[in-house]
Amino acid sequence: MLKITFLGTGGALPSKERNPAAIMVNREGELLLFDCGEGAQQQMMRGKTGLVKISAIFLSHYHGDHILGLPGLLQTMGFFDREEKLEIYGPAGLFEVMEAFEKLGTHKLQYPIIPKILSPGDVVQRSGYTIKAVRADHDRPALGFVLEEEMRPGRFNREKAIELGVEPGPNFAKLHRGENITLPNGTIIHSKDVVGPDRPGRKISYSGDTRETDVFFYESEGADLVIHEATFMSDMADRAHEYGHSTAKGAAKMAKKYNIRKLVLTHISPRLTDEEESVYEDAATDFENVIVAEDLMEIEVELRDE
Amino acid sequence: MLKITFLGTGGALPSKERNPAAIMVNREGELLLFDCGEGAQQQMMRGKTGLVKISAIFLSHYHGDHILGLPGLLQTMGFFDREEKLEIYGPAGLFEVMEAFEKLGTHKLQYPIIPKILSPGDVVQRSGYTIKAVRADHDRPALGFVLEEEMRPGRFNREKAIELGVEPGPNFAKLHRGENITLPNGTIIHSKDVVGPDRPGRKISYSGDTRETDVFFYESEGADLVIHEATFMSDMADRAHEYGHSTAKGAAKMAKKYNIRKLVLTHISPRLTDEEESVYEDAATDFENVIVAEDLMEIEVELRDE
Repeated sequence: MLKITFLGTGGALPSKERNPAAIMVNREGELLLFDCGEGAQQQMMRGKTGLVKISAIFLSHYHGDHILGLPGLLQTMGFFDREEKLEIYGPAGLFEVMEAFEKLGTHKLQYPIIPKILSPGDVVQRSGYTIKAVRADHDRPALGFVLEEEMRPGRFNREKAIELGVEPGPNFAKLHRGENITLPNGTIIHSKDVVGPDRPGRKISYSGDTRETDVFFYESEGADLVIHEATFMSDMADRAHEYGHSTAKGAAKMAKKYNIRKLVLTHISPRLTDEEESVYEDAATDFENVIVAEDLMEIEVELRDE
Repeated sequence: MLKITFLGTGGALPSKERNPAAIMVNREGELLLFDCGEGAQQQMMRGKTGLVKISAIFLSHYHGDHILGLPGLLQTMGFFDREEKLEIYGPAGLFEVMEAFEKLGTHKLQYPIIPKILSPGDVVQRSGYTIKAVRADHDRPALGFVLEEEMRPGRFNREKAIELGVEPGPNFAKLHRGENITLPNGTIIHSKDVVGPDRPGRKISYSGDTRETDVFFYESEGADLVIHEATFMSDMADRAHEYGHSTAKGAAKMAKKYNIRKLVLTHISPRLTDEEESVYEDAATDFENVIVAEDLMEIEVELRDE
């Protein structure tokens, strides 16, 4: 399972309908949080994503709308007697932010927090997948993140296995996971003869706040899903780029160029409330498979070749 | 007008239904905010209380659930081009809190913020009313606040004025606001002869987080409305007092003792979700005119003798 819950899809100025930035990713039961705007913990409760057992938090940058939900969340984890360490990743400046939160004295936690600074290009190796930090082009040090699952075994050719004399059962599983087996008659059946080439896992990415850049989309190339900011539409492209943001159309053009499968636009300004259709169209003229995120929207990313 | 909007009625652990502490008071169009938990600004949008023109903010203490909505709110005021100064009042420790917020770098504001520390007993004189800081009994320095309007002119005795030969019109208004007038026949009519004794304005108070105390209720004596925390019910009174909190029943007994007109319970723990009726009953057996606050509930406090 790779399920994404959009906890907050608003911009720096939240609205009645859109919380500040926060995205929960549930990968096979493991919870990863990307950004943590004000109110994120209540959105986790509303979206029933889970909250206490978040494994790691990735902060794209330290504007308030991406981090101000963090102290409250950390405290709530403490209330629920969390004991497991919590890894918090972000660009340079992370220690100063954590120190400011601590000075607010809002949390005395019984579980350890492990802050780790990521530079562009750094790869966090996790069990079954990696998360790569990508340079974002904002008005301060900022990162995007690319989550990519490891390759998984190729398709098992059941018919061919039977043809070769293998009986359905445990031997099928052995062959599929790469082991060779010996039949009762002494014949050796090689895994590679009944299992296709390795297949890619899922790949998703999140831009944080950024101008639309080749760097981020190059790293996201071929992704199943890209979550990209679209603080403006193309009618205000100059303004967008002046402030270190993207347009819906700009993100869409990049998505097309880099063969992205699906594009989800987020960080939607309250200027664009009731104009979600226009935001969609601004992008869809260049890239068809696009949607505009809404708070508490869920998307499951399927394996391509199951 | 004296209208109270409960923006957040939850405890330190918010819930789907209850935001952390924040209360907006609209007095004759002037906005006063008491505490500012995470998400308060979105609640202001939802409750249509106004937000950019808040005159002053009163912080009861610096636990996260009472202050973490502040940096986002300050930033949003900046986005809306606020220029008027903003006064922020709170107990000792205020400067450190504001400094930590600034270090988060989340706001570069074009309007001045005036932080002012209040000690118990301090009175803030404002136009037409005062706000008195009262010592709260929490696990750290904490304040409650009593808002009391100035005395206003007594009732105008219209019948008597006519009897004395005054014609309805501008002279009525003059007499009512304390001026004496001279009739065409030379008779002087004294204001005090047609205007009753001065009448009290409205009086409301907010406890912040505290054990139920005589000090707070003594200062609130006779109030039209007391907003009091009730983090626990009386079945857990020991726990409540251990952590510096009140029970619903404890607050109700005090409300009765000090002739409070109406008691509103807030800071409701998620333990008590779906037990609001029990919270009510825990108090109502001792003090009938009590309600349990809900998020976005509005209460208008009327003048007693209009």
